[in-house]
Amino acid sequence: MSRAVVLARHPEGAVTEQDFSVVDVADTGLPAGFFRTRNRVISLDAGFRQWMTEGAGDNYLTGMQIGEPVQSIVLGEVIESDHPDYAVGTLVSARTAWEEQSVLDGSDLCSPLEVASDVPLHQYVGILGPTGMTAWIGLFEIGQPKPGETVVVSAAGGAVGTVVGQLAKAEGCRVIGLTSTRDKADWLENDVGYDVVVDRETQPDLAGALREACPDGVDIFFDNVGGEALDTVISQLREQARLVLCGAISQYESAVQPLNNSWELITKRARMEGFMFSDYFESFPEIAEDLQSRLQRNALKSFDAVYEGIEATPRAFCDMMHGASRGKCLVTLD
Amino acid sequence: MSRAVVLARHPEGAVTEQDFSVVDVADTGLPAGFFRTRNRVISLDAGFRQWMTEGAGDNYLTGMQIGEPVQSIVLGEVIESDHPDYAVGTLVSARTAWEEQSVLDGSDLCSPLEVASDVPLHQYVGILGPTGMTAWIGLFEIGQPKPGETVVVSAAGGAVGTVVGQLAKAEGCRVIGLTSTRDKADWLENDVGYDVVVDRETQPDLAGALREACPDGVDIFFDNVGGEALDTVISQLREQARLVLCGAISQYESAVQPLNNSWELITKRARMEGFMFSDYFESFPEIAEDLQSRLQRNALKSFDAVYEGIEATPRAFCDMMHGASRGKCLVTLD
Repeated sequence: MSRAVVLARHPEGAVTEQDFSVVDVADTGLPAGFFRTRNRVISLDAGFRQWMTEGAGDNYLTGMQIGEPVQSIVLGEVIESDHPDYAVGTLVSARTAWEEQSVLDGSDLCSPLEVASDVPLHQYVGILGPTGMTAWIGLFEIGQPKPGETVVVSAAGGAVGTVVGQLAKAEGCRVIGLTSTRDKADWLENDVGYDVVVDRETQPDLAGALREACPDGVDIFFDNVGGEALDTVISQLREQARLVLCGAISQYESAVQPLNNSWELITKRARMEGFMFSDYFESFPEIAEDLQSRLQRNALKSFDAVYEGIEATPRAFCDMMHGASRGKCLVTLD
Repeated sequence: MSRAVVLARHPEGAVTEQDFSVVDVADTGLPAGFFRTRNRVISLDAGFRQWMTEGAGDNYLTGMQIGEPVQSIVLGEVIESDHPDYAVGTLVSARTAWEEQSVLDGSDLCSPLEVASDVPLHQYVGILGPTGMTAWIGLFEIGQPKPGETVVVSAAGGAVGTVVGQLAKAEGCRVIGLTSTRDKADWLENDVGYDVVVDRETQPDLAGALREACPDGVDIFFDNVGGEALDTVISQLREQARLVLCGAISQYESAVQPLNNSWELITKRARMEGFMFSDYFESFPEIAEDLQSRLQRNALKSFDAVYEGIEATPRAFCDMMHGASRGKCLVTLD
C-alpha cells in the first residue's frame, strides 16, 4: 500500500488544496519491462498548473484527469525492476506524479541519476535538475547574455528566477528582478544577488519602475509570467533584445492578458522565443556538471523551500503558485 | 523650381489623398559636402505610414511633420555635387522623400547604384532594392526555410509578399498566402505561384481556412500584417516554428489588435523575430546579385504597379495601403 495525490477536481482560477486529495493505492504486480520506484523527492513546478485546467491537453502534454495522480517531476529509487537499465537501488529522475511509488518503463523524461554524497538529494530536482536546467538553457541557449547587458527576470523569487539571476550576474550582466512583495524583493537584492528588484506591492506602476531600473532599456527578458509584465517589458526593449519565454504563470489561473506592443519587436529587431528544457535532454549531463561546479565553488547558491510528506504536496504547490514559497519548492518523502 | 509632396495633416485612420499636398520648392544653393539629385523613381512602402501618425517617432525613425516632405525610399540621379563619392551622373538609392529633387549628404541609407542596361530602372527600388532585400533577408536570414516546410505569408499580394512567395516556393516549400480579395487570391495562385491563397472576402473564418490550408500546421509565418492574422497563425504553429515580423499594416491605420496566444510560443518552442532590412546593409550587393540572377533565369518575376508623376504619389500610396495595387507600388518621375 502506498499513497498518491490525485486531482479531485479541475481547479478554476487560483488553485486550492481542496482541488486535490490524498488516496491509498493498492500494490499491483509489475508489468514486464517496467520498474517500481520508492519516491524520495517531488518537484513542484508552476508550468504543470496549465495542464490541470479542464480540457487543457496540447502538443506538449495531455491534460490531467480527475481521480488521476497529478503530473510532476519526481526523484525516486528503484525498489523492484524488470528493466535492464534500471537495477534495484538506482536513483532516477522521471516525469511521473505526486505519488509515493511509481511504476515506470523508462520513457517520458526518465533517466538514471548519479548523485554526489556531499549534495543534498533534493537539489537534484531543483538547481541540479529540471529547474536548474531550465534556467541555464533559457539564459544561455536562448538569451545569450553578454557582459554589461541588462537582464530582467520575472518571478525572480521563484525556483528558476533565483538561478537565472545568479547566472546572469556571474556573466557580468546587470540583473533586475520582478517580484510580488517588497519583503521578497529585499531578500532577492540582499541574499540572492539581484541588482535591483521591482515589486508589485510598493511599485504598482510597473512601466515607471522598470524605466527607472533600466534607463537604457532591456537587453534580455527571462519571462516566467507572461501577460502584462511581458507586454510592459516589450515596450522598453533595447535594439536586438531577446525575450526568453519560459513560462506564463499569470495566465495559468486567470484570463490571458493580451499583448499590445508586438510592433516594438519590429523596430527593435527583437527576438522572442519559447523553449522547453526537455528538448535539451542530451546536454543535461554537461549542464549539470557546470551547475554543480558553480555550487562547489560557492559561485551559486541553491534556495529551497522544503516540505515533508506526501500530504504536504497540495499545500506546497499552492504556496508556490501564489508566491508564498521562495526559491525551489519541493516535497521530500523520506 | 521643383515639386515635392508634403504632409498636409497627420492622417487619422485610413490615409487619404487629402492628407498630402503638392508644393513648389524653390531652388537653394548646395551646402558644402552635399549633392543634389533629380529623382527618377519613388518607392511606396506601407511601413512609412506608421511614422505619419501624430507623435509617431521612435527608435527607428523620427515622426513626419506637417508641411515637411514625406519620407520615402527614392532613386535619383546626381545633377550637382560637392561630395567626392557622388559625382554628377551617379545613380543613388536613398531614404529621402516624395520630391522631384533631393539635397543629400550620403548618409541615411544612401548608396551609389550600378544598374544593368537590360533591367527596368524602377526595379531597383522594388525587387532589386529595399523591397526585394526585405523579402530575401526576412525569409532566409530570419525564417530559414527548409524544403517541404509550410510557409504562410500575409499581405501576399503586396510588394514583399509577391517576392517571398516565389522565393519560398523555389526553396521547395509549400506556400500559403493571405490576402484581401478572391480576385487577388486567384492572381496569386495563377500568376505569382502560391500553392493556396486564403482571402478575407470569401473566407471570413481565417482560423478555419488556415487549418484547411495547413492541416499539419505552419512552419514559417512571414508577417506583414500583425494583429488578428498574427494571433491566428500563432495558434496553428508546428513545433520549432519561426515567425518573421516584417510589418504590421493592420495597426498603422487602426487600433492595435492584441495577441492572446503567446503561450503557444512556449509549448511549440517557436521563435518570433522582428527585423529591418537596413541592418543588413553590407549584404545588399550579394543579395541583389542573387535576386538579379533569379530574374535573368526567369526563376523570379517582378510584379509592379507603376504610377507616373509626382502628383500621383498620394494616390499610389493610398492604393497600396488599401490593397488596390498589386506587387510593388512605385512612381516614376521621368
